[in-house]
Amino acid sequence: MAAIHLPASRPWRPSFAALAGLLTLGAAGLLFLAAAPSSPPPSAEAVRATRSNVAALRDGALQGTRAYDIVHSLTTEVGPRPAGSDGDRRAVAWALRTLKELGFENVRAEKVTVPHWEIGAGEGRITAPWPQPVVLAALGGSVPTPAGGIEAEVLEVPSVQALAGLDPARVKGKIVFIDKRMERRRDGSGYRETVPGRSTGAAQAGKLGALAVIIRSVGTDTDRTPHTGGLKYEAGVPPIPAAALSNPDADLLESEVKSGRPVTFRLTLTCRSLPEAESANVIGEIPGRERPEEIVLLGAHLDSWPLGTGAIDDGAGVAIVVEAARRIGELKVRPRRTIRVVLYANEEFGTSGGPAYARAHAAELPKHVLAGESDLGSGRVWRLSTHFAPEVLPRADELLQLLAPLGVERGDNEAEGGADLEALAPARVPLIGLGQDATRYFDWHHTANDTVDKIDPKDLDQNVAAWAAVAYAAAELPGDFGRAPEAAKPRRR
Amino acid sequence: MAAIHLPASRPWRPSFAALAGLLTLGAAGLLFLAAAPSSPPPSAEAVRATRSNVAALRDGALQGTRAYDIVHSLTTEVGPRPAGSDGDRRAVAWALRTLKELGFENVRAEKVTVPHWEIGAGEGRITAPWPQPVVLAALGGSVPTPAGGIEAEVLEVPSVQALAGLDPARVKGKIVFIDKRMERRRDGSGYRETVPGRSTGAAQAGKLGALAVIIRSVGTDTDRTPHTGGLKYEAGVPPIPAAALSNPDADLLESEVKSGRPVTFRLTLTCRSLPEAESANVIGEIPGRERPEEIVLLGAHLDSWPLGTGAIDDGAGVAIVVEAARRIGELKVRPRRTIRVVLYANEEFGTSGGPAYARAHAAELPKHVLAGESDLGSGRVWRLSTHFAPEVLPRADELLQLLAPLGVERGDNEAEGGADLEALAPARVPLIGLGQDATRYFDWHHTANDTVDKIDPKDLDQNVAAWAAVAYAAAELPGDFGRAPEAAKPRRR
Repeated sequence: MAAIHLPASRPWRPSFAALAGLLTLGAAGLLFLAAAPSSPPPSAEAVRATRSNVAALRDGALQGTRAYDIVHSLTTEVGPRPAGSDGDRRAVAWALRTLKELGFENVRAEKVTVPHWEIGAGEGRITAPWPQPVVLAALGGSVPTPAGGIEAEVLEVPSVQALAGLDPARVKGKIVFIDKRMERRRDGSGYRETVPGRSTGAAQAGKLGALAVIIRSVGTDTDRTPHTGGLKYEAGVPPIPAAALSNPDADLLESEVKSGRPVTFRLTLTCRSLPEAESANVIGEIPGRERPEEIVLLGAHLDSWPLGTGAIDDGAGVAIVVEAARRIGELKVRPRRTIRVVLYANEEFGTSGGPAYARAHAAELPKHVLAGESDLGSGRVWRLSTHFAPEVLPRADELLQLLAPLGVERGDNEAEGGADLEALAPARVPLIGLGQDATRYFDWHHTANDTVDKIDPKDLDQNVAAWAAVAYAAAELPGDFGRAPEAAKPRRR
Repeated sequence: MAAIHLPASRPWRPSFAALAGLLTLGAAGLLFLAAAPSSPPPSAEAVRATRSNVAALRDGALQGTRAYDIVHSLTTEVGPRPAGSDGDRRAVAWALRTLKELGFENVRAEKVTVPHWEIGAGEGRITAPWPQPVVLAALGGSVPTPAGGIEAEVLEVPSVQALAGLDPARVKGKIVFIDKRMERRRDGSGYRETVPGRSTGAAQAGKLGALAVIIRSVGTDTDRTPHTGGLKYEAGVPPIPAAALSNPDADLLESEVKSGRPVTFRLTLTCRSLPEAESANVIGEIPGRERPEEIVLLGAHLDSWPLGTGAIDDGAGVAIVVEAARRIGELKVRPRRTIRVVLYANEEFGTSGGPAYARAHAAELPKHVLAGESDLGSGRVWRLSTHFAPEVLPRADELLQLLAPLGVERGDNEAEGGADLEALAPARVPLIGLGQDATRYFDWHHTANDTVDKIDPKDLDQNVAAWAAVAYAAAELPGDFGRAPEAAKPRRR
């Protein structure tokens, strides 16, 4: 990337509208500045430098970044890193080492207490009418089965919602099979429609007296690689073992059920819960040159599920935000505000790192001017969503203009930012969501197939381009995004 | 399919050339019959009926067949069926039941003694420099490791051939990693280039004192599903354990090796050899109306590897040849010769059924006028190859004309027919190969991912169309293909 010159400090601070106008209109954009009546007109030099920095960060990243090398390093040198595991500890060490090597400042680990659950081995077998082994994996947090397993008749339901209408006498003593198929869509919205079976199926089936629950994997693939993911038991309901069948195995079980003959199934899970463990949020900064106390937070999560090496979930996000910030840090003159990269502990198993960060940084959250998290794999950014106060919403369009050359469309103002950012809601931190193409993400999400070969380095580069442009603009420009609305937002995971 | 009328018996027997001409040229093809000077001209009715039968078989199949239902039934009701296993016995019972239900005659099981090896569990772990679990599977026939596994330094080689030049001192005491990647091609020819590492790696590495061998899977996918397959030990060389890593795991191991640090690996295999078992070739026939002693043999193999349900290998082939023959059997007037479907025992683990058939039927092999086997999955037929005597080679072009509407091209005269047909070579049985599109076949071949969802029913229908057209023509028309050349042909598996 070419060296970029920015005048160190000037009284004029262009508004987003002005900057976007400049980027879009080039020289003609100078006319646009008349729309900022309270500011004196900027010098032509300042205009050129600001425009040059955003465009150079964005377009330079498209020429190639270190993002793939970063995720390759994490997945090779650490690999699986579920909360509380040895891999988790090695991931924290990797992150500290990597952020320092890449030139970040104020690199530190902030202690987070995390739960520790081991997935163990999962074995399943259809025992009648046609005996067949199947491939499955325990759902995150499941209790184990007895050592000899659980064998019972299968009751298939099309969704967890369908359980509500059932006579408990039909469910009692059965293994409930929740057979809902996830739809493939670019925005990944099929996930939200399907994931309740995973997260609440054990509680709902347990209430009705089921012995165990097995679900069709929440995934869009046809691989023999089951998708794990967290579940939630309910207080007062006995926890029952829960596992996900791979999609081909769910097809097989469905076919046996459709034969009309009684179907029985044997499930054995050796997962277990261990005492809480210590992990850490790992933080690195590009300190702001004028207002270092004002923070633009770029997040990703460091932990992963144990089945794969956590490449798309969320090694990709780690690589994207680290590399985006690193490139901003390479500018000859850094932006006014601080870019803070937070690599969160334990997002997957109940989200420890996000709340821990919010508690530890409560005093400075009012100075968090913007936060975003990259946690939807490595697909290209195609949609910008926000969670801004209504009065600053026009600024979303201005940000959009910075990203327009990347093919980014306008989304809504309901951005959730990322699971780790939910804890920022009480402080009304404005959120940005750079929606990624999730067409293939749920083929591999939470499976053994979450490995680095699934990532196209050019896709990561495009993500780096988008995050670097947005983060730089948010950290450099004088205007901010106010405080976000208080409305609670639904969780995706 | 509409009812088809064929005159029962007539002195005139059109040549293939005449028939092909008719099919291609329509009414104008009548002129073509003048090219068969030794035969009296056929009646217009005979010409129409013959043309009608071939076209109706071919084009009718494209409208939909039972082939998918057949492979769905096999994979659901039986599933994995490696030689000697319970699944193998259930597969034989399934085949007898299914052929009878579908209206075949002379349905029987012909006893075959088969080897019996169980794949057991395979565990692998890179233990240094960066510890990570990997996914692997024992190669077919491997000896197990000691219960505690084998841990040793890894020596990576780019191919089994590269072992030849190595100083045994470099290999002794190591785990050899054969890291050759299979190329994806429509004709599947990347397999033959890569498979020697799997079939001979253990013998070659064992000769040099290696403790074990691990290979990059012989497959074109990026799934965490290793590809097993047979190996051959050599007399006088101590057998060493051998396993295949999934492609993503081979990538990971390769990355660790490329770090330049010493890499160590722990391998544990619980596979085992058991006493020989009894299985069977299952046979069903559509007896010929005039020359029932002359046989057109359509083969596929009934056994599978244990990891998947054997849908593409070779449930698809079973479904294709059974359904092609069944449709011929539905004709109001069956063809002159017998169509014999042979569902072979144990193709995968050293080919027992093919030789057993050749021994049991030695006396009638001279009356086998043509043989073909469907064993390359469910991809569409795109190439016709043969193994014919040179003097009847023009007939290959005539057959090609029957298949031209299906988009089939001309291949060579080196068809191997299929592994089970190799035993027919001494009897010089003419072979036909209907080459399938294998672009995706080796993504799933010999893996847990070999399941019925990988099959598009329309692709199976196209295969049925091709086999039904060719088999009918071979069984109906007077000319034959002589006897095949004696030249030995290389084995694909």
